[in-house]
Amino acid sequence: MLKAGLPADWKPDKNADQPVYVQIIEYIKEKIASGDWPVHSRLPTQRAMADTWGVNRSTVITALDELKAEGLIETVAGSGSIVSNNTWSLLASAAPPDWMSYVQMGEHPANSQTVQAINTYENDPSIIRLGTGELTPALLPYREMEEILGSLQGKLLHLGYSEPKGWLPLREAVSAHLRTRGIEAPPDSILIVSGALQALQLISQGILRQGSGILLERPSYLYSLSVFQTSRMRLHGVPMDEQGIRPETLARQKQMRDAALLYTIPSFHNPTGTLMSEERRRQVMAICERERLPILEDDAYGELWLDEPAPFPLKAMDHHGLVLYVGSLSKTLSPGLRIGWIVGPQPVIERLADVKMQTDYGTSAFSQLVAAEWLREGRYERHLQDIRASLCKRRAIAMKTLQRWFSDIAEWQEPKGGFYIWLRLKQATSMKSLFSRALAKRILLNPGYIYDYADSWHLRISYAYASEEELESALYELSQLLRA
Amino acid sequence: MLKAGLPADWKPDKNADQPVYVQIIEYIKEKIASGDWPVHSRLPTQRAMADTWGVNRSTVITALDELKAEGLIETVAGSGSIVSNNTWSLLASAAPPDWMSYVQMGEHPANSQTVQAINTYENDPSIIRLGTGELTPALLPYREMEEILGSLQGKLLHLGYSEPKGWLPLREAVSAHLRTRGIEAPPDSILIVSGALQALQLISQGILRQGSGILLERPSYLYSLSVFQTSRMRLHGVPMDEQGIRPETLARQKQMRDAALLYTIPSFHNPTGTLMSEERRRQVMAICERERLPILEDDAYGELWLDEPAPFPLKAMDHHGLVLYVGSLSKTLSPGLRIGWIVGPQPVIERLADVKMQTDYGTSAFSQLVAAEWLREGRYERHLQDIRASLCKRRAIAMKTLQRWFSDIAEWQEPKGGFYIWLRLKQATSMKSLFSRALAKRILLNPGYIYDYADSWHLRISYAYASEEELESALYELSQLLRA
Repeated sequence: MLKAGLPADWKPDKNADQPVYVQIIEYIKEKIASGDWPVHSRLPTQRAMADTWGVNRSTVITALDELKAEGLIETVAGSGSIVSNNTWSLLASAAPPDWMSYVQMGEHPANSQTVQAINTYENDPSIIRLGTGELTPALLPYREMEEILGSLQGKLLHLGYSEPKGWLPLREAVSAHLRTRGIEAPPDSILIVSGALQALQLISQGILRQGSGILLERPSYLYSLSVFQTSRMRLHGVPMDEQGIRPETLARQKQMRDAALLYTIPSFHNPTGTLMSEERRRQVMAICERERLPILEDDAYGELWLDEPAPFPLKAMDHHGLVLYVGSLSKTLSPGLRIGWIVGPQPVIERLADVKMQTDYGTSAFSQLVAAEWLREGRYERHLQDIRASLCKRRAIAMKTLQRWFSDIAEWQEPKGGFYIWLRLKQATSMKSLFSRALAKRILLNPGYIYDYADSWHLRISYAYASEEELESALYELSQLLRA
Repeated sequence: MLKAGLPADWKPDKNADQPVYVQIIEYIKEKIASGDWPVHSRLPTQRAMADTWGVNRSTVITALDELKAEGLIETVAGSGSIVSNNTWSLLASAAPPDWMSYVQMGEHPANSQTVQAINTYENDPSIIRLGTGELTPALLPYREMEEILGSLQGKLLHLGYSEPKGWLPLREAVSAHLRTRGIEAPPDSILIVSGALQALQLISQGILRQGSGILLERPSYLYSLSVFQTSRMRLHGVPMDEQGIRPETLARQKQMRDAALLYTIPSFHNPTGTLMSEERRRQVMAICERERLPILEDDAYGELWLDEPAPFPLKAMDHHGLVLYVGSLSKTLSPGLRIGWIVGPQPVIERLADVKMQTDYGTSAFSQLVAAEWLREGRYERHLQDIRASLCKRRAIAMKTLQRWFSDIAEWQEPKGGFYIWLRLKQATSMKSLFSRALAKRILLNPGYIYDYADSWHLRISYAYASEEELESALYELSQLLRA
């Protein structure tokens, strides 16, 4: 059931002539009349209203009783008060459209409830985010960003619409950067996108038939998204081991599922943290070449190696245009920048560029400008070194804390890079219940079932976001919850 | 048929040991092997290759003959040379996937050929853009943008992922700005989007059922987009007069078509330039309220009045949550900023925010920051005054030139704001032929059929982009083409 929002920008005026409860009645009527609180939506709890408005709960009850008497709201067992269906006539001669039915009618699926909850709670600063896939603000290069912005005098050449593939100087900078990762990609084969998620969106809409089969690691980040499901793709999970996706069944699965694509995150896989070995990379490439199975390589974490450089991306081994490669600055530099890229055969890139133009007319010129400044002149490389050092330290803290509190109740591997530890509980647990119980302690978890429908054994732990103290305390709290 | 691209970044080396034609053969083989030039794609013309590579045409022919003999390309009557289907084995043991079939398989429709051509030619600086819906670079505030970027020290608070509805300080600034336009919208009812096109995309995916009917002005900008057609919406045109969309048939059409939405551009309509009168606005609102027909109001041009302020948007007259309002900075400040907003009832805004998070994880933090700086402290208002003065002058030049060269062959109204003159020819014309003939003279036109499938009478003329001299010369050339 839809909940009516409770904006913090209004409070009754206790010094006004009008009694406070009357002001509350008028306010709620206005919310209902404007459609902000649509019919059938659930009102905030009495406690929430009393707290937000700084009044006694009895005042709220008086106002609600009045609204009930007027037929505007009603009480539903278990749901508190809801806006009634048949009372628009009491408010005005003209009724708003039934927006609720519109909201329910849209084709695009809603995010899963857990993901929606995570998106919401991530904005609550009092919450410890123990699974978040994002660098903590202290690791984001605020000072250097300001420097770059201040240095743009005379460089800001581009306030108009972007060309379809993105700003050429940025594509050139990306092309040069990719060369350091073993990838030869001329600027014409690069499409700038607003982050890797948009890359997946464009690929799903631009080059895949509805109902196509997608092979992917199981578990996978992709299961947490609706991007492929929206286009009615079918996801077929392939098991992993500590070397990455297991190659034995790839050929059979490709044929059985008539798969159109293999989606893989070879380096510091999300959520498991696995690094695909060089040999495994060669095996996967060979099978996919033989089967003519295109690969969609998601390399969002590849530069975040912590011990030694990760093997080059699959794209660097690709001599036959087999791999669509997706890179991003969101995990290394700034999620707010919204800059990523797709590298692939030119006809594919041109097709995706056309779809992108129809989607949002191109990516922010400002973000493109800032990204190009970062990639030029070694600045980005230096930043990566700093990030690696900080993540290394944080990984050590997480490892030590897990060792201390989890060794009898869980298992894990030390990741060689990226953000994530894939914590496997020794006992299956009701993850939904654990999620709620942790939230009650102000700890936000990313349960395994987000990344694999059937999972009730894993948690994705991130050492990238929570502060070092929070990491320790929240992991301890979590171990206590698991023991309870 | 797909055309193989001809990158400008390669030329044969005339001083090399290898003969030039052999270098060309190797280059083309590499293009085919990598999948850049996929099977079935058409090779560039011999002339284009000769020009780009700085060689004689006979050298190109020698190379092509060799490739033909090797079975890699073949000649097709009327299409020049194409890459052959069955020759991968000649190049390598492993073949790339058949990307061409992927490109053709994607669900998202391609832009119309005319729109694709326009998108491409708009990047050619030698072309005069006589219909472009964009401020000319000279009117974009480069200097002030640089000032703002330089002044952000200490203000850059936000490099992480955005909250779903967008950065709160920007939503607050938009809310305050909307108040000056008669619209009361708390920040909670505002969603920041990456331009108005994305707003339409989110609405089409988020709150409309597949196959819904959309009423709209005919002609309309919306016909030039595939955003609603992609979701299989049906567009039903409603005739216009000089006051705007004609209200008589709205109620009947709503019932006949079971329409879910009326899409309208009341102020300085794209492409006709029409300003909906205050009385007409009241009529349209009254009918839509009675019919409970939600309105999607596109107000991209509303602030670009040239003679006197336009009536307030429909949203300002909306007391029943009837109107979803879309605003944008693309037409007034900078298309490259990619900043727009949707205002509507909270449940709708929350639904659209969730879809946006699934689409691109939010809009560039940099663009949001810059937009907020513009909207605060009257800077944007002052900029609008400058833009209005410049557009006024440009409109006068366009009017004078039309008067001089078109009075016997066309009709038009003086627009009261925005960018566009809707030029109606006195004789129906083959617009596709006119488009090509104008392009041969380096003039890029926006023919009426982009905005109304059946139109062969109109051209959208924009006085916002071409320089004042170009406006005069290109309009003269156009009149000559029409007389020919």
